[in-house]
Amino acid sequence: MPHSPFRLTATEALGRIAAGDLTAREWTESCLDRIEALDREIRAFVHVDPAGARKAAAEVDAGRRKGPLAGAPFAAKDIIDTHDMPTAYGSEIYAGARPAADASPVAMARAAGAVLLGKTVTTEFANLTPGPTLNPLAIDRTPGGSSSGSAAAVAAGMVPLAYGTQTTQSTIRPASYCGVHGYCPTQGDFRLSGVREAAGSFDRLGLITRSIADIALLRDVLIRRRPRTFEACPEPPSIGFCRTQLWPTMDPTLQAELLRAAARLGEAGASVVEIELPAVFAILPDAHRTVSSFEFVRNFAFEIDRHWERISPQLRHGRIADGLATTYERYVAAGAAIAQARTQLPAVFEKIDLIMTASTLGEAPHGFKSTGSAAIGALFTPLGLPCITIPAFKGPTAMPMGLQALGPLGGDDALLAQAAWIEANL
Amino acid sequence: MPHSPFRLTATEALGRIAAGDLTAREWTESCLDRIEALDREIRAFVHVDPAGARKAAAEVDAGRRKGPLAGAPFAAKDIIDTHDMPTAYGSEIYAGARPAADASPVAMARAAGAVLLGKTVTTEFANLTPGPTLNPLAIDRTPGGSSSGSAAAVAAGMVPLAYGTQTTQSTIRPASYCGVHGYCPTQGDFRLSGVREAAGSFDRLGLITRSIADIALLRDVLIRRRPRTFEACPEPPSIGFCRTQLWPTMDPTLQAELLRAAARLGEAGASVVEIELPAVFAILPDAHRTVSSFEFVRNFAFEIDRHWERISPQLRHGRIADGLATTYERYVAAGAAIAQARTQLPAVFEKIDLIMTASTLGEAPHGFKSTGSAAIGALFTPLGLPCITIPAFKGPTAMPMGLQALGPLGGDDALLAQAAWIEANL
Repeated sequence: MPHSPFRLTATEALGRIAAGDLTAREWTESCLDRIEALDREIRAFVHVDPAGARKAAAEVDAGRRKGPLAGAPFAAKDIIDTHDMPTAYGSEIYAGARPAADASPVAMARAAGAVLLGKTVTTEFANLTPGPTLNPLAIDRTPGGSSSGSAAAVAAGMVPLAYGTQTTQSTIRPASYCGVHGYCPTQGDFRLSGVREAAGSFDRLGLITRSIADIALLRDVLIRRRPRTFEACPEPPSIGFCRTQLWPTMDPTLQAELLRAAARLGEAGASVVEIELPAVFAILPDAHRTVSSFEFVRNFAFEIDRHWERISPQLRHGRIADGLATTYERYVAAGAAIAQARTQLPAVFEKIDLIMTASTLGEAPHGFKSTGSAAIGALFTPLGLPCITIPAFKGPTAMPMGLQALGPLGGDDALLAQAAWIEANL
Repeated sequence: MPHSPFRLTATEALGRIAAGDLTAREWTESCLDRIEALDREIRAFVHVDPAGARKAAAEVDAGRRKGPLAGAPFAAKDIIDTHDMPTAYGSEIYAGARPAADASPVAMARAAGAVLLGKTVTTEFANLTPGPTLNPLAIDRTPGGSSSGSAAAVAAGMVPLAYGTQTTQSTIRPASYCGVHGYCPTQGDFRLSGVREAAGSFDRLGLITRSIADIALLRDVLIRRRPRTFEACPEPPSIGFCRTQLWPTMDPTLQAELLRAAARLGEAGASVVEIELPAVFAILPDAHRTVSSFEFVRNFAFEIDRHWERISPQLRHGRIADGLATTYERYVAAGAAIAQARTQLPAVFEKIDLIMTASTLGEAPHGFKSTGSAAIGALFTPLGLPCITIPAFKGPTAMPMGLQALGPLGGDDALLAQAAWIEANL
């Protein structure tokens, strides 16, 4: 038995359990110890359930709970319903609220044997107002948002697997800032029953882990497919390196790292070409904001109507004011513009397997007034592409920065295998 | 003041309130009386809240609650969350469960001044297993499903407005069987936060009323647009009359009525042409079933894993068995086939404003073992088109049968105005 099973990825630890070298109880205790040791400071969790976790782990060790994730500790962003833990959506309005059911992704992981340790901090209603979580790599910096606690918990070794969500950049950004892996599937690929809707046109579940193999495993569970052994793709992929219109706003160290990575991957055998996104994609950030804000104020009509004073001023004056001022005509036009942009996707991917770009504009910023820029998300998220961030680079102060890879719609399995090739060859 | 305000449409009664001829309290009391008188037998409601309704109505009369629906009684299918009434999703698993928030459509109607009287019967999880509701027009027949209670409540005069949902035919069918109006918007047009997801690729909110003007009013509230005065379109529409592949299975009286309606609308000035759906649409019913079942078992993973014995055998052996046997590959292929079919829609609507077809295969069937055939829904629902049923016809035993009109994606406003023209000219 290793002294610190919390350091293992889920795939590694599951292998040790299968080999008889680790028990679910030891793994869970190791993660609970880690939470106990660190989370008073980091504040990744809003709720931890040690008793429930120990009981579930004991059932795994007794052979009464089985499945491809049997014994794997995980955490869920507190925008995701749980029947046995409170779910507050990052708002005081719902302090202590207890849903009647587990959300689909929680239920599916548990049915596969996974052990839910607790609920992680989300920004208020998965929007911009930060929660109390610190970046475990530098406690004077934001962990990013809105899946702040999930990224911090995985980065700090409190859990190997955590769920986030993403409507703009809420999985890729915190994963990048915290130096872990983050992934969102092709839009619509994972079910969201019991996950509080922010903007249904864009909402996706996000997976946060410390390896691509763990993403692939959890993905198999969520689409209810027999897990396959994950392997990097044997052939080098065709990479479209995309600076995007945001290049001038990126940290120069990140620019240099991206260029160096492109060169290195080319030397390793990949075809790497610089691509420019179709001109029509320039409308995407504005269209994304229009659609998100319009849908947000309708989804949160109850809170706006009944609990106005308990919504943060930042949310009221930002997203909500924006949404209330957005007309239906503008909303419809923005949706149509996004649909039109998506028709260009087959051409974008005609000669490349994936787009390689930055995950964020740079390192996690200092301070906690904001969760950092979501600009790259606003550009790509409306397209619904599967995307992954790999903790590939170090910034000017040695904080992590992610390399983001995006595949064609429905190309999730290939994207993960190609991302693993990239990771192995950097 | 009329003696029976429960008989009025919402638009009519709101006009009388504006004119000082009716109070919200009188309107609500009239509907509550109607429920009291009839619902012991019809069983449209699973929960009624007279005290809450009286309080809300009194606030309207006192001028403290305003809005375009101020004082309008309504009901919500029990698949839709309410913070002050139980929400059981048609399942004993959730008997007495109380969500923390109102679903988006409930909150938006209430914010517009509407008065929620109660929750209406849904089939189990909005799937096939019938609830206890009888058809108010013939108590030995099904009201249709899954929005059984909402259609029955509106037909019986218990409320002028009710919410249903539709994943296959769950609004159009019960509205047709009960002789009222039913409408689903272009897919994605109304927000579904707090509405239990069955199959997110198809789920839509449905509106059930006794007039097209009421649908238009409620639609304006749900997209948060200043309500406009509703009028039938002044010009006769171009109608594509479509028998569909289901024609041979339709009641001969319905066939004759549809043909007569096509002729009459032509005489009234409409261009009426017979159209055939593209051959590729033949795959839609199978693809709809594949996608629905796959998504259903993932959305209900919690109930399947933890409450298996409390799920009805009909649901376990039907939708759930189907979903568990559906592979991800088949699901993805079905989704792609539907997307491919949708690319034909611009050609379908190139020369017509709307498709005119049947709402159901005939009158509401006798008995309560099933809620009737959803075959027409399985054909059209995957396309996401806005659709409306008008209680236009009488069947062989004088039960109502609907005429269904479907418009192009995003053409909701025009569709409602054209449907009103059709209704006026039949």
